[in-house]
Amino acid sequence: MTTEIQRFQSTRRLSRVVLHGDTVYVAGVTASRSSGDIGEQTADVLGKIDDYLASVGSARDKLLSVQIWLKDIQRDFAGMNAVWESWIPEGAVPARATCEAKLASPDLLVEIIVTAAR
Amino acid sequence: MTTEIQRFQSTRRLSRVVLHGDTVYVAGVTASRSSGDIGEQTADVLGKIDDYLASVGSARDKLLSVQIWLKDIQRDFAGMNAVWESWIPEGAVPARATCEAKLASPDLLVEIIVTAAR
Amino acid sequence: MTTEIQRFQSTRRLSRVVLHGDTVYVAGVTASRSSGDIGEQTADVLGKIDDYLASVGSARDKLLSVQIWLKDIQRDFAGMNAVWESWIPEGAVPARATCEAKLASPDLLVEIIVTAAR
Repeated sequence: MTTEIQRFQSTRRLSRVVLHGDTVYVAGVTASRSSGDIGEQTADVLGKIDDYLASVGSARDKLLSVQIWLKDIQRDFAGMNAVWESWIPEGAVPARATCEAKLASPDLLVEIIVTAAR
Repeated sequence: MTTEIQRFQSTRRLSRVVLHGDTVYVAGVTASRSSGDIGEQTADVLGKIDDYLASVGSARDKLLSVQIWLKDIQRDFAGMNAVWESWIPEGAVPARATCEAKLASPDLLVEIIVTAAR
Repeated sequence: MTTEIQRFQSTRRLSRVVLHGDTVYVAGVTASRSSGDIGEQTADVLGKIDDYLASVGSARDKLLSVQIWLKDIQRDFAGMNAVWESWIPEGAVPARATCEAKLASPDLLVEIIVTAAR
């Protein structure tokens, strides 16, 4: 049994989206406008995830499992959740886990890693 | 090819269990009795995971991959492992990775994220 | 629908490789030569991943999703990436996310967690 792997938006380092069967793996997404606060960065990240999912025929109502990494979980957990809960469709919420972790650049406040169905 | 997604024990923020094909994604689980030490919290977490898995016809002998986040890995790695090894059935141990990470509340010592088969 | 689970190189605590359908889950891999710098440790880790993947008929050009944990992301992100980019085949790069995390032993600088296709 062999299922084809399709990769999208690849650099030398990573692919933004990988499709295997009907499972979609999205690379960890951070904000482009890293000067923003947690609300702005979370909204930026989730908007990018919408685009990545749409590029392979998936969408935010097909998330399976999500990891969220916050630079400062005590300060930013509530702010991230407010944007998250306004974005994720009621009745289609994924499994999720959140922890604190330093990210690749000091001004990044949040990184979100998504696995979805197509 | 489209495989149905089933979600269980959902809040506005996350689903405790998501089923996609015969893969089961469980949200990050922390202890309810967060006053306990690492042994008590780990036992509490693993008991909850038993319940989540049972709710979709899976069980602890069908784990595929596990991430374990510890608040203090130097202090608590051995204590977590002692409970883990008495819980996980010999011959049915999953892939696993453990690191240190601050969790959503300061009194939480351990969070476990499970992917399983049904 | 039930897909067989196969586990390889199991200890009492974890299996190095778990196969479920055509998805391969590899346990978090750290360097054996933990005295090395980030380049040496990353090369050691990726060499072990080659071996784990080969043991179930997979290979580095079939990675789906990767998490990389670094002890010191500011210091070691570039050094890890240099070895990573020379190892991962162009045109076959996976989704990837990297953060900073303390690992099970203080001399470990990098841990890599791989999900692959067979």
